[in-house]
Amino acid sequence: MAVFTYRIAMLPIRCSSSNSTNSHSHDPNQQNLHKIKINGSASAMMPLKVDLPSSLTITSVAPVVENLSLTKEQTRQNIPTKKQYIDPHRQGLIVEEGVGYRQTVVIRSYEVGPDKTATLEIILCLLQETALNHVWLSGLLSNGFGATHGMVRNNLIWVVSKLQVQVDQYPIWGEVVEIDTWVGASGKNGMRRDWLVRSQATGQVFARATSTWVMMNEKTRRLSKMPEEVRAEIAPWFIEKQAIKEEVPEKIAKLDDKARYVVTNLKPKRSDLDMNQHVNNVKYVRWMLETLPDQFFENHQLSGITLEYKRECGSSDIVESLCEPDEEEGIINTGLKQNNDKSLFNGFSLPSEIMEGNGFLSSLEKTPLKYTHLLVAKGKTQSEEIVRGKTIWKKKLLTTMPFSP
Amino acid sequence: MAVFTYRIAMLPIRCSSSNSTNSHSHDPNQQNLHKIKINGSASAMMPLKVDLPSSLTITSVAPVVENLSLTKEQTRQNIPTKKQYIDPHRQGLIVEEGVGYRQTVVIRSYEVGPDKTATLEIILCLLQETALNHVWLSGLLSNGFGATHGMVRNNLIWVVSKLQVQVDQYPIWGEVVEIDTWVGASGKNGMRRDWLVRSQATGQVFARATSTWVMMNEKTRRLSKMPEEVRAEIAPWFIEKQAIKEEVPEKIAKLDDKARYVVTNLKPKRSDLDMNQHVNNVKYVRWMLETLPDQFFENHQLSGITLEYKRECGSSDIVESLCEPDEEEGIINTGLKQNNDKSLFNGFSLPSEIMEGNGFLSSLEKTPLKYTHLLVAKGKTQSEEIVRGKTIWKKKLLTTMPFSP
Repeated sequence: MAVFTYRIAMLPIRCSSSNSTNSHSHDPNQQNLHKIKINGSASAMMPLKVDLPSSLTITSVAPVVENLSLTKEQTRQNIPTKKQYIDPHRQGLIVEEGVGYRQTVVIRSYEVGPDKTATLEIILCLLQETALNHVWLSGLLSNGFGATHGMVRNNLIWVVSKLQVQVDQYPIWGEVVEIDTWVGASGKNGMRRDWLVRSQATGQVFARATSTWVMMNEKTRRLSKMPEEVRAEIAPWFIEKQAIKEEVPEKIAKLDDKARYVVTNLKPKRSDLDMNQHVNNVKYVRWMLETLPDQFFENHQLSGITLEYKRECGSSDIVESLCEPDEEEGIINTGLKQNNDKSLFNGFSLPSEIMEGNGFLSSLEKTPLKYTHLLVAKGKTQSEEIVRGKTIWKKKLLTTMPFSP
Repeated sequence: MAVFTYRIAMLPIRCSSSNSTNSHSHDPNQQNLHKIKINGSASAMMPLKVDLPSSLTITSVAPVVENLSLTKEQTRQNIPTKKQYIDPHRQGLIVEEGVGYRQTVVIRSYEVGPDKTATLEIILCLLQETALNHVWLSGLLSNGFGATHGMVRNNLIWVVSKLQVQVDQYPIWGEVVEIDTWVGASGKNGMRRDWLVRSQATGQVFARATSTWVMMNEKTRRLSKMPEEVRAEIAPWFIEKQAIKEEVPEKIAKLDDKARYVVTNLKPKRSDLDMNQHVNNVKYVRWMLETLPDQFFENHQLSGITLEYKRECGSSDIVESLCEPDEEEGIINTGLKQNNDKSLFNGFSLPSEIMEGNGFLSSLEKTPLKYTHLLVAKGKTQSEEIVRGKTIWKKKLLTTMPFSP
């Protein structure tokens, strides 16, 4: 393990004194960004120690793209063609002996809910973002949604088959968060991607996540083995570490129309589609959670979610969201005897105060409540599963509501 | 005008070699972030020239918060209590003779639509975010949604009365964007806030925006004069510059139920509420735009939007979204004679190819199409206006679709 002191380009922040823009001029050359223009890539350098494996040769940090025969769009995107170690714009860098990725993000004002804590949706978005930025910095990213050059040559795209997220605590507005992500092997033809979300200030772990990915032929829509060409690209990035301890995976039951909560006729909107023209992952979760009554969210916080993906959801699908509480699971977890009152473990039908016995009450309040979910695409003749889900909840405590009135 | 070379704390990036986390340990102290730990606030410093007015005294940059009697949440948020000049986490800094704010952001993977360009919604989100970060860095931010300490002492909150955004070009996935924002006086008791969104690489202006704000008493819900205490806080930040040339403001007509497009029974969801427990601005725009047929969006790009806010929208409101094309406006703008075919200027009812005359066709294709919008809260006895809107559109050209198949 070698440790270098390496000079990197600073944030390309420009400081100008005044009149930096003119409301009439659309020509950037006519903008008066002239006085004290500090473009860090030229002058503002600083020493930063980067931890690199001794076997690796550092490629140049800037310019990140070889400026030959690039389209205008490629220039605007500036996707690196070689491995980079630091991305000052995304506040990302390569860690973990040169194969992991770490990015610092600030929870933005529009990424939090009414209680000023980040939503699960935004955590999922940030997982996607850091995964793509990891590939971005690796120099392997082709012009697609995380596909490598070798994958594009083989008409392959990534397909997620499973995602599991555990949230211990939600970050709050303005909080600085560090997200680590890395990849590993999953069987012979799959890839595992894990994440760890931490407080930048204290190192406290907010969330852990793991996912498994396989490759699909973009044209035949069939799953594919991992070609050797692609394995050669990504296998050097594989590490063993796991964010979530591997347990015997809990099977997610398939719900049917008899589920307690059913919302029908969900139609993807334009704004729900991602770059792959598919309904985004985050929308799946929103559809799943919106089956639960609002009141439930006031008293409960999502502490875990597992998603098993079955099929793509396109813009023309009509979706049904089913949800069923796993009452017995909650009871078994606390070692309490079974109770047949269905509403009891639902968490919102009865206020906890009316339950007898302090021990019972306090045990119950700590009980993670579980729900099983299913999204199906309703066809004329049959329905097709899109994604099965399991959510785990905990009672909100006052201390988890930092901005309560 | 003085120019300082000033040492600031670098991005607090930590580099560790391996095993930086253990899936079983939730104690941050037990994480093995031990090997090469570079916390910039201590060791990684770099010189950066910051342009400051000579009359200003620099307050310390780090630590940004005086660490006395802070709640846990205040420590996590770390809102500055004194004016700061640089925010390395948000990639923001004070410009414009010490009163403007500039932030560098990268367009994220989940902030773009299927065509890989940023959505209008995300541009509006970034305007909100940079405005709040401007107040954040100013040292004036109290524990609220942009309210200063003086405002909180007077039970005042900000209320936006008008927002106008012009988008020349939408940034694309991965593009680095610089957003400038600054404030000015608006009449005796109001404030104007402007923004300029530029390509970081070329300086090309992507978007301009302006808004006007007044103060409301949080308890009485009545508009308020600006107290001298508050004026003393914010007036030193006022500058004259305007992002959008002030024209005689176009009056936005009030639509009624006879509007061409009407979507009824819109209900705010939990995820639509912001920190003020109100439906977020972005949701307003989505409700407005969703009245237009999907096909329209395939061929048209929003180039401008003006919003006139009339009343808050809360979680219990049932909303109706009305929309009417301004056909005649389109004709007048191009100097063409009026045409009574209502469908012609609608932009999606007829393909442009069937229109006669090359000159006419090319003029029409460049014609900004305009729509008038209205959101109303439907009450039992009467409806109340929430926001009036005007949108301006242009035909999509191939060059504006960088990722078309």
